[in-house]
This record gives sequence, C-alpha cells and structure tokens, in this order.
Amino acid sequence: MSRKVPKRVFLTEDQMPTKWYNVRADMKEQHDPYINPGTMKPIELEDLLPVFCTELAKQEGDCQTRYFDIPEEILDFYKIYRPSPIVRAYELEKALDTPAKIYYKFEGNNTSGSHKLNTAAAQTYYAKKQNLKGLTTETGAGQWGTAMAMATAYFGLDLIVYMVKCSSEQKPYRKAVIETFGAQLIPSPSETTNVGREILKNHPNTGGSLGCAISEAVEKAVTTEGYRYVLGSVLNQVLLHQSIIGEECKMQMEMIDEYPDIVIGCAGGGSNMGGVMASFMQDKLLGKTNPYFIAVEPASCPTMTRGKYAYDFCDTGHITPLAKMYTLGADFIPSPDHAGGLRYHGMSPVLSKLYHDGFLDEARAVVQTEVFDAAVQFAKYETILPAPESAHAILAAIQEANKCKESGEAKTILFNLSGTGNFDMGAYTAYREGKMKNYVPSDEDLAQGFASLPKIPGIQE
Amino acid sequence: MSRKVPKRVFLTEDQMPTKWYNVRADMKEQHDPYINPGTMKPIELEDLLPVFCTELAKQEGDCQTRYFDIPEEILDFYKIYRPSPIVRAYELEKALDTPAKIYYKFEGNNTSGSHKLNTAAAQTYYAKKQNLKGLTTETGAGQWGTAMAMATAYFGLDLIVYMVKCSSEQKPYRKAVIETFGAQLIPSPSETTNVGREILKNHPNTGGSLGCAISEAVEKAVTTEGYRYVLGSVLNQVLLHQSIIGEECKMQMEMIDEYPDIVIGCAGGGSNMGGVMASFMQDKLLGKTNPYFIAVEPASCPTMTRGKYAYDFCDTGHITPLAKMYTLGADFIPSPDHAGGLRYHGMSPVLSKLYHDGFLDEARAVVQTEVFDAAVQFAKYETILPAPESAHAILAAIQEANKCKESGEAKTILFNLSGTGNFDMGAYTAYREGKMKNYVPSDEDLAQGFASLPKIPGIQE
Repeated sequence: MSRKVPKRVFLTEDQMPTKWYNVRADMKEQHDPYINPGTMKPIELEDLLPVFCTELAKQEGDCQTRYFDIPEEILDFYKIYRPSPIVRAYELEKALDTPAKIYYKFEGNNTSGSHKLNTAAAQTYYAKKQNLKGLTTETGAGQWGTAMAMATAYFGLDLIVYMVKCSSEQKPYRKAVIETFGAQLIPSPSETTNVGREILKNHPNTGGSLGCAISEAVEKAVTTEGYRYVLGSVLNQVLLHQSIIGEECKMQMEMIDEYPDIVIGCAGGGSNMGGVMASFMQDKLLGKTNPYFIAVEPASCPTMTRGKYAYDFCDTGHITPLAKMYTLGADFIPSPDHAGGLRYHGMSPVLSKLYHDGFLDEARAVVQTEVFDAAVQFAKYETILPAPESAHAILAAIQEANKCKESGEAKTILFNLSGTGNFDMGAYTAYREGKMKNYVPSDEDLAQGFASLPKIPGIQE
Repeated sequence: MSRKVPKRVFLTEDQMPTKWYNVRADMKEQHDPYINPGTMKPIELEDLLPVFCTELAKQEGDCQTRYFDIPEEILDFYKIYRPSPIVRAYELEKALDTPAKIYYKFEGNNTSGSHKLNTAAAQTYYAKKQNLKGLTTETGAGQWGTAMAMATAYFGLDLIVYMVKCSSEQKPYRKAVIETFGAQLIPSPSETTNVGREILKNHPNTGGSLGCAISEAVEKAVTTEGYRYVLGSVLNQVLLHQSIIGEECKMQMEMIDEYPDIVIGCAGGGSNMGGVMASFMQDKLLGKTNPYFIAVEPASCPTMTRGKYAYDFCDTGHITPLAKMYTLGADFIPSPDHAGGLRYHGMSPVLSKLYHDGFLDEARAVVQTEVFDAAVQFAKYETILPAPESAHAILAAIQEANKCKESGEAKTILFNLSGTGNFDMGAYTAYREGKMKNYVPSDEDLAQGFASLPKIPGIQE
C-alpha cells in the first residue's frame, strides 16, 4: 500500500527548533499575578530567588518576550532524544473505521519515558550555569524524578528527590532508575525537614502526598547552601520549555501539508497540554486559525471540569506562592488513581486563564477504566504501551474519531502521546484483573477541598 | 558547537531497506547441516514442517537467495518503529577523552525494548499468511516474549508463552506486559505438557530453565492443531530478519561518509551480533573491506571463548534438531547472571561457522560487574539506560575506545545498542548495592556440560 503521508514524520537535527515560544506574549490578558502569602502582595522577582534559579525566576515572570533562544548546551542535550516523531495512527484509524486522520506526537522515546525531560534539561542547565551545587524536587508517579536524575547526571549536579512514600514502595523500579542515575531518593514525609517531621509526628503511618513532598523539597532547597528547587509542571517556565513539542508539531504537520482541527492533551499540572498546544494556540490567539483544544483530566481529580477559578497554594504545606488557577483546593485529597501524574489539585495559571477566557475550548473528565480500555486498544494496533496519563488523551482522540465516523467528517486530530507505561504495569495488571475502580469525588468531597481556599483581603474573601 | 555529523542519523521511511540480506549466500563454506536426532541423518524440509511455518522452514534451509523481499505487511509493521537511528556517542567520547569515533545503532525504541521485534513481526506474519491459529514460544529475560505478544496482537494470532518460572516470578512486570498484549503466559515447567509434567514429578520445586521452556513450547506446538513454534535467536531465519539492522547501519554510515573499523555486538544465541554485522560481513566475505568483528559474551556462559565446536541439541529436553555450533553442552547450566538473554549454551550455526573460519575475528568474555560499570557510565552521558545484554557491547566499545586513547588512533567503532534496561531494575539495584557477583564456570563445570554432547555415528564419536 502506498501512503501519501509516512507512518512517522521526523525532523532532521538541523530543522529542530532553536527557540522556545512563550504563549503569554500573545495573550491579550495575562493571568493574575502570583501572590506572596506572607505579605499578601503580588510577588516580586526577589521573592522567588531563594527558591528558583535566577534565570528561571526571570522566565517565570516574563510575559513579553515571545521567543527565547535555547542555549547551545540544552540543544545538545535535546539532540540526544529530539526531534521526536509525529506518527500517523494508520493502524488505529483502520481499527476504528473512522474517516478521521489521527496523529500523535510521541514524546516517550527516552529513558525517563516522558516529555518531562524537556524542562528537566533546561532547569538543570540554568542551575549549572549559576554554579549551584544541587537541586531538590519531588516526584509522585516518578517520571519527573527520573527526568531530573538524568539531567543532573548529565550536567553534573547533585539531586535530592522527595518521592511520595507510597509511590516509592509501589514503584521500586522507578526508585531504582532514579538512584541508578545517581540521585538521592528520600521517601516523603521524612525526618530531613521540619515539615516532614511535623507530619510524621501527627501521622506516623502516612503514605505521604505530592503536596507534602513539594513542601519538603522547597524547605530543603531554601535551607541548603547552593541548592534551589525545581518543579516539573504548573509553572510558566515549564510551559515555556515544553513549547518545543508544539513548535516541532507545527513544522512536522506543515511538512506533510496538514493542520489539526482538534488538539488534545492530558492535563494534570498543564505541562503536557501546554506543550502540544503552544504553536497552534498562537495561531488562535492571533486569529489566524481556530483549532479546537481539549484538555483531558481524570474524573477522580476534576480540576477544570468541577474546580473553582481562584487563588490557591500550589502545595498542601501552604508554603508556596498563591496562584490564580482552576483548583480543587490545596487540601483536596485525590482518590487513588493510576494516573499519578494527573493527581494534582491545581492547574497551570496560563492554561487556567486560556480556559477561563475560552481559548482552550473544552476540559473533559474521564474515568480510568475507560482510559485503560483506550490504552490497551492503542497498544494493540500502534504497538506502543502508553503511560496512563497519556492514555487520557488517547481516549479523547478515539471519542473524537468515533464522532467523525458518525458524521462522516474527515477531521485531523492531533494528540500528545507524552509518555510510555513501562513502569506502570501494576496499573495495567489491576485493569486486566478487573480490580480497577472508578473514583469520582462527591460534591461533599469537593466542598471540603474548596473550604481550604485562602482568604486574601480585597481579592478573595 | 557545530558538528559535522549529527547526534542521530535517521533514514526516511522511503529510504528504509525493503530486502533482508542472507549472509549465507556470500559464504564460501556453509555450516554443517542440521541433523535429525531420530534418524541421525541431515534434516529435510519435511522434518521441520510440524514445528515451523512452511515459509520460515524454507528460509531456514536457503543458503542461495542473497536477498529476500520483505513483504509489504511486515514493512508496514516495521514502519511503526523503524528505521532506527544510528547515534554518535559524542558525550561518551568526551567523557572517555578518546580520539575514537563511537557510533551505536539504537534498537530499543519500541515497547518490547529490543531488536527482537524485527523477527517477531516476520515470523508472526508468515504464520498468519499460512492461516495458522496460534504460535508457541518460550521466554527467559522476557524481551522475546514481549516482542511476540506485540506482533501476535497486531496480526491477530493467539500466542502461548512458556516463561521460565523463576523469571516470571522475578519479573512480574515483564509478565504483565506480555499479558496486556493478550498472550497466554504459562510459567515453565508446567502441567500442560508431557515434558513439563515429567520434570515437575522429578523436581517439584524447580525454577525452570530456558532449555526446558523450549522443550515445552515445541511439544505444545506440535501437539496443538493449527499451531507452530517460533524461536527468537540462533536460527538462520532469525539472522536473516535481523539483517535489517546491518542494512540500515550501512546506509546510515554512508550518509555521513563513515565506515566502521570495528563492529561490536553482544552474543547469546547470535541474533544481536548477526544483525548488526550483516552488511559489513558481506563486504568482508567479498574481500571489499576488512572490519574487525567482536562478539561479546558473559564470562558466566562462555560459549565461544571456552565452548566446543560440535553438534549439539538446541534444548535441554533433547527434542530439537542437532546443530553444529559452538556449545557448552545442552546440559550446561549457566550460573545466575543478570543478562538472561545471553544465558544460552549454544550459538547460531552461522556465527559459529564464521567465527571458526576467522571472519568473525574475536569473541570476548566479560564479567557482569564490569558490564554494569559500563552501563551506568553510558547511561550518565548518553541518557539511555541499556539492557544488561547490550551493555556487554558497550563495555567492549569502551575498551576499544580506551585502546585508541593509548595509541592515538581515531578508529570508527560501531556497536549494537540492542535494547533498554527498563525491566532490568532488579539487576541495576543488585549492582548498586554491591550484591552482584561474577560467576565464572570452572573447567569441571564445563566438562560436565561437554559430557552431554551427543554421539553421532561417523560424525561425532
């Protein structure tokens, strides 16, 4: 069979984008400023410097620079695993018998197994450039911790990873990979921080939480000479670095004379959706095209579909700045769900603003058994075993392709296959054995989370 | 920094080889014929048909057809994950401070995590074409079982995998992947075959062995209507399918105006080395060039470095044909070693013949702690976590690069990075915790294995 479009579209190294795109430069309205919870005033650059590398703190606040040159050293790192292919899902299309054309950007071809490496490399490089000694971070599902372990091994920095205790026990292999790359892994809560000791005193048997691990990692960074803290999602700087996904996508689709009608990403903290949509969102913001954007989240943690657009802490320890975003409340405890990377109470302020203003068209909540139905169907035909997080986007893509089958429309669908599921076999086994449950929080559960939203005099009462 | 050669060299889909290369067509002398252990006569095509698909049995015996067209359906499957990149190990070279140029062919970018998919797709396709209902096979480390599960899911055939019992317990995630793709996994020895029941009667607590799993899989295939057996290494047909690795390598190196002085692969049954060397061995056989070939094996299972060139069974159950090859004896029991894929008593008859005749220049035995030293060093600089098997080739490449540092020669080294180590974290953990031992069989251990070599009247007394 002769196909007009190849199965996989690559870019050469020379064609790889050399700039990150900052979507905020094209937004007519910016998200409300971060607020310092100590002063209840908008945050200043200086407030961020004890926590973040200087260059990254600057990127965090920059809503004017449209393109940032990617430093040569980061480009060299990217070249080890980028450009990543766009793949035409011929086999899946055939199985679905749909007139739709389905494309996926595959970001899983690296040892971390996900797109997280794009920002891990950038954040580590800037830390190295600042002559820092080391970095701290947290990890839940483990993809971010792995990406950071790889980047710090490469650039020669120390790394301390606070891994949610129950995850470090459930995912011993993730822990092993992180340690193989030379990082120090500490199950959280731990005795190494005040916040950790406090939690252990009150809850000696807790399995930990992402919010608690964030609090520990931040405390460790600000109290250790030559250390800073890094975060793998939510932040503006992360969206900036992940824009390389969208920039590549747009070039690759142009090469095959395509443009997406629908762009789909999963949404936990926003780095996945923010990455794949970047360059197409620019077109929409500039009024050039009008693609339909869908952010897919787990029904167990329905930040955009059932959350509030409000100021909130980014961590359960209440030590980070306040961000205006869609949130379920920093104290909301998501039910167990196998897409650990999407189990976060908040959402990127940029994505939240774009959703609130109608540029990000739709948020869709889905239950995990249906997500795994889609994952297994996809694996069978496309041979890639997806991460549970990425499988949220697969499910929505299949839903859209099925709509095309009904309507007869040959829409072009693009989704971000952000990672592989090689370290998620516990989840796949639970699914296969029929032991997977669909958790959906009740209105009362949500009310409890909302009750923890902070009061800000004159802004949020 | 501007580099003449990019980090990764890809081929486009249009450039992908459309033929497999059969190295036997250029060998002046063929390996001695397989012998039927029932009749002690050279095997006929008909002898193989109850075990293998007809087309594959024909390929097994064909030493004349130089190139086989790859069927369209297999090419479509290959296009999902091929062509695979050749990567210049710039970062490793820098760390080693060597004038050598190190290239690796990376075959791990697929869910099975290894090159095994190249022949799994081919063998499954021919089974489908023959209207078979299903296939049986065995797996030890699990890469082959995963590859077969993926291929049979895609082509729509049933698959029964006999997995060495201790492996299925040590590697529950490998088991889970295989089952996720819909295959039936049976820990071996099992109650489902005569040979399994016999072994269980005598050794109720055995953890099983690859030889035993092969015997069970073959018995199951020949006693089940519409089933045949498939094997992932050793066979001529496997080397034929794996030649796509070497064919791509040669094209990619030509694109960047390079040619290897040294070609390195790990060697268990031979599919890895056989694949990467194929097209360069052709040049050598035809007298065009003279690359130096190194096959690297574990010191714990030193088939080529300390084995005998003799007729032997391919399985411990003594039900397969006899092959003339380097062997430690079918009854040799390799000590525990984390490179499960290299723990095989024999060696591809083609590779054995080429080694015996001096075309394959060197076999090198290495101990596993040094293999893991190399693996972790490679991971740090090149960011890919290698399979323990592939890390044997990495170690030899580093050894050769270090020689270049001493001599000042800028040799071009190519090795096959045949797979990733994502499912081998138990091994990496043992290494990191200092619990890994280097097993080297004594001469007495070897003598025991050699004692099991069969007697063949007039040929091997």
